[in-house]
Amino acid sequence: MIVLGIDPGTAVTGYGVVQGERMSPSRLIECGVIRTRPRDSLANRLQEIHAGVVELIERHHPDALAIEDVFYARNVRTTVVLGHARGVILLAAANARLLIAEYPPAEIKKAVVGTGSATKEQVQFMVARLLRLKSPPQPADASDGVAAALAYVMSVGVPSLDRFIANA
Amino acid sequence: MIVLGIDPGTAVTGYGVVQGERMSPSRLIECGVIRTRPRDSLANRLQEIHAGVVELIERHHPDALAIEDVFYARNVRTTVVLGHARGVILLAAANARLLIAEYPPAEIKKAVVGTGSATKEQVQFMVARLLRLKSPPQPADASDGVAAALAYVMSVGVPSLDRFIANA
Repeated sequence: MIVLGIDPGTAVTGYGVVQGERMSPSRLIECGVIRTRPRDSLANRLQEIHAGVVELIERHHPDALAIEDVFYARNVRTTVVLGHARGVILLAAANARLLIAEYPPAEIKKAVVGTGSATKEQVQFMVARLLRLKSPPQPADASDGVAAALAYVMSVGVPSLDRFIANA
Repeated sequence: MIVLGIDPGTAVTGYGVVQGERMSPSRLIECGVIRTRPRDSLANRLQEIHAGVVELIERHHPDALAIEDVFYARNVRTTVVLGHARGVILLAAANARLLIAEYPPAEIKKAVVGTGSATKEQVQFMVARLLRLKSPPQPADASDGVAAALAYVMSVGVPSLDRFIANA
């Protein structure tokens, strides 16, 4: 199973492509960030994010998209703009008929570290450890994308399949 | 000039295609709504909205997209979900290299009725009158899409071009 994990953002969208099954060690295929130019219009930034995700899907043929949920406390305007970015990412995944799983940040932490209140450093440490990397993926947004993918890999088989929305 | 006006929503997205110049009467080319199924996943609904807008752009070749801005007071979750819909609409417009104008609802009312505090009925009345229609476009969401397009047509030439974001 190949999972594309995404930590969405209009300025920096982190991603990680992970291959794995629940009970065996996972392998990091690629991770990185899609950066957009702050001076570009929102519409142009959405174009870049969408094109970047489409390109990742075409290159790696993932089975599923795992993405951070948006409904956490923040500045409302920031959250709404983030919704735009999530929109074009979900569109790319639906058009490619991927399975889609959305996780609140605490659920990703819980899956990767064991506790929903884990620090960013603990998540990075466990991401590196689970994938047998010498150091956590950089920048941190890439690591968050990888963590989302790992959360999916490690939760498949666990009886909470109602979270997974088929796009068949 | 042909303008595609959109009132975005995840359940119902209203649109209106208007042809006009600032100083001469405008003409309604088409209006209607893109409806999505409540039981579908958000990702599938975004697919339908995006495909619907792409189809309208391909059919009418508008020069510009006029869209209601999202930053008004509402339930935060509703507003964030609405952000997803706006994201895929802006993506469709940017990919087609349309000019994009985003208007707060009060600005649309002001352009169409003359006051930002106009009622929905006043907006519908003026939409029908400006386009010489026997009755306002139905349903109301379609009328709101038409109003956004009219706001664009009637404000072009007015010195507030900083609202218009080129996608060249």
